[in-house]
Amino acid sequence: MLGNFTYCNPTKLYFGKNALEGLNEQLPKYGKNVLLVYGGGSIKKNGIYDAVMKVLKENGKTVYEDAGVMPNPTTEKMKEGIERARAAKADLILAVGGGSVIDYAKGVSVSVHCKEDFWEKYYLRMEDPDCEIVPVGAVLTMVGTGSEMNGGSVITNHAQKLKIGKVFGEEVFPKFAILDPEYTFTLPKYQMVAGFFDILCHIHEQYFSGTDDNTSDYVMEGLMRSLIHSADIAVKDPKNYEARSNIMWTATWALNTFVAMGKTTDWEVHMIGQAVGAYTDATHGMTLAAVTPAYMRHILPYGVKKIARYAVNVWGVDPSGKSEEETAKEGLAALEKWMRAIGLVMDLKTLGVTEDMIPGIADSTYIMQGGYKILTKEEVIEILKESM
Amino acid sequence: MLGNFTYCNPTKLYFGKNALEGLNEQLPKYGKNVLLVYGGGSIKKNGIYDAVMKVLKENGKTVYEDAGVMPNPTTEKMKEGIERARAAKADLILAVGGGSVIDYAKGVSVSVHCKEDFWEKYYLRMEDPDCEIVPVGAVLTMVGTGSEMNGGSVITNHAQKLKIGKVFGEEVFPKFAILDPEYTFTLPKYQMVAGFFDILCHIHEQYFSGTDDNTSDYVMEGLMRSLIHSADIAVKDPKNYEARSNIMWTATWALNTFVAMGKTTDWEVHMIGQAVGAYTDATHGMTLAAVTPAYMRHILPYGVKKIARYAVNVWGVDPSGKSEEETAKEGLAALEKWMRAIGLVMDLKTLGVTEDMIPGIADSTYIMQGGYKILTKEEVIEILKESM
Repeated sequence: MLGNFTYCNPTKLYFGKNALEGLNEQLPKYGKNVLLVYGGGSIKKNGIYDAVMKVLKENGKTVYEDAGVMPNPTTEKMKEGIERARAAKADLILAVGGGSVIDYAKGVSVSVHCKEDFWEKYYLRMEDPDCEIVPVGAVLTMVGTGSEMNGGSVITNHAQKLKIGKVFGEEVFPKFAILDPEYTFTLPKYQMVAGFFDILCHIHEQYFSGTDDNTSDYVMEGLMRSLIHSADIAVKDPKNYEARSNIMWTATWALNTFVAMGKTTDWEVHMIGQAVGAYTDATHGMTLAAVTPAYMRHILPYGVKKIARYAVNVWGVDPSGKSEEETAKEGLAALEKWMRAIGLVMDLKTLGVTEDMIPGIADSTYIMQGGYKILTKEEVIEILKESM
Repeated sequence: MLGNFTYCNPTKLYFGKNALEGLNEQLPKYGKNVLLVYGGGSIKKNGIYDAVMKVLKENGKTVYEDAGVMPNPTTEKMKEGIERARAAKADLILAVGGGSVIDYAKGVSVSVHCKEDFWEKYYLRMEDPDCEIVPVGAVLTMVGTGSEMNGGSVITNHAQKLKIGKVFGEEVFPKFAILDPEYTFTLPKYQMVAGFFDILCHIHEQYFSGTDDNTSDYVMEGLMRSLIHSADIAVKDPKNYEARSNIMWTATWALNTFVAMGKTTDWEVHMIGQAVGAYTDATHGMTLAAVTPAYMRHILPYGVKKIARYAVNVWGVDPSGKSEEETAKEGLAALEKWMRAIGLVMDLKTLGVTEDMIPGIADSTYIMQGGYKILTKEEVIEILKESM
């Protein structure tokens, strides 16, 4: 646990079947005006919208709606949301959806009472809020981003070709989150497995950093083993409650700041994936999947010891009689084999990337400082090319 | 993750060297009157008392003291503390010490403004507070109980020969905790290793329950592996910062409610150990160590599958060609070997238990319902006898 840090995560979680009943405990804490934020309307088909509205009405709330939050929420949509929240005099923003919807709700929550331009202040200058923050609650319908219990908020500016993730402090975390594993049952398989890989990638980004003997690494190995085990079950049987509930819980803990403690963390795969997303609007988890094998091969010489440990402790590679490099490579082969088996997109072409986009994507890729190899722009280009 | 649950842990942690500086961020949030609670005075020898007093004075606090909290805090001492807190009109109770001191501070915090008898209300009738709670902060000097980030409060009533642990809700959790691994360096080896075993036993009590495929189990395997690895280093080199810091962090997460989510949990070893403690005043972790091997042998037929998993995933036992029972037994042998190696007390006689105490200890032992075998009183007596 080298390094000093502070940890605080006050989000209250209601987990399990009928977790929505937790709203009855939370709603009375907030004023009358609720801005209900959601995405493309799938919650109207699967009954979640009706169930949430019922509880809101029973608690005497006046509900204002802000629908149509897209998978990669944009600055344009954010402007609309901020106006709606202001017009509603929102006392609570209730986000019903996956990471995009909750990320968006957080962005709105810190902008309603802020006079500056939110994009410049929070996402470009990376400042912290100094205005009143509208409390956010979340009803999770898709797992992956951990947004229900952290301060992350990824917003895309199409004009600037930038997709930027701001990490807010605990005052912006959702005050509460409803996690009912059954709410994730109706998600199409493509989105489901993309979410699974997003979770694994979140853990990778934190695990593949640092050379100390950190408790967080041991915990992450446990989380990865649980995820892989349950993902294999869920791919065959998406309505397996046990598997989906374990994955939901793992996703939250993979990115609620806990396992980052004492780690420098990397996030370079996310930076490349987000740049791809800004150019293609491809599903986030798939952008990460498409570039991960090439990225791991590139950092292997610099993080061979840790990748060998990962091979043994996560993928069960037997290290006896092998060099660290051989063990590490066997681990990466096991990862890739598993990725193909669960149905991930393994190349950028399928996601709509064309050769001519590559220089632009590389230009939009932030270079991080915490991983085993600080990439050059040439290396980003190589990784992108190898991922085509 | 079978089962529904809620999770909330709002305690803010300041971790690392000079973590005490975190007090400067926290103290301004509370009023002028601080009740400083501590134990036998070791903090006056190692400089922690002076360091804490300096920060309190710099923050303009009026400090009232409540010293002499004993390793197993008593109802008599509690009455004294409640009176002191009332006289001081305490705005904050700052506990400086290990689990006993923090447990005690929590007990006082819910009793200052409560008109009923605290022992009967909280510890016998197990009620929740319905009065104003004085906020508690903690400066940790000894790891093990996780009390710095949970609602646990174990109090001993000598007249009734009862040592009872009440688990309060998040409103009683310390508001903040200072975790500086260097503060644990001066602890004598006996207390240090007892604390290590207390941590392992906390994980055991949660791990050895349930038969589902729970993410918490994977996380606990990681925590146990990290603990064992670092404990081996710390026993040889108690001032190894890396090892002591990992152990400190592991201890907090072993018992801050996280890994209990989705688990029924057992706690029978703690019940037996606490009954031993009420009769002998022996160090808590040592009472757990003395009874654990016999307890594990008794539950083995009922939890053989999980104990075999534990053997493989925690102790590295190779299961090939072995029955589940053989693998499980090899795991328990590895546990016992490790316990002896780090210097734990392995029998009750050494802790001052005499044969004639056994019926009384068994009578004082609460029978828990969440483990692999619900014990009969006869079985408790057998376990105690085998542990002599």
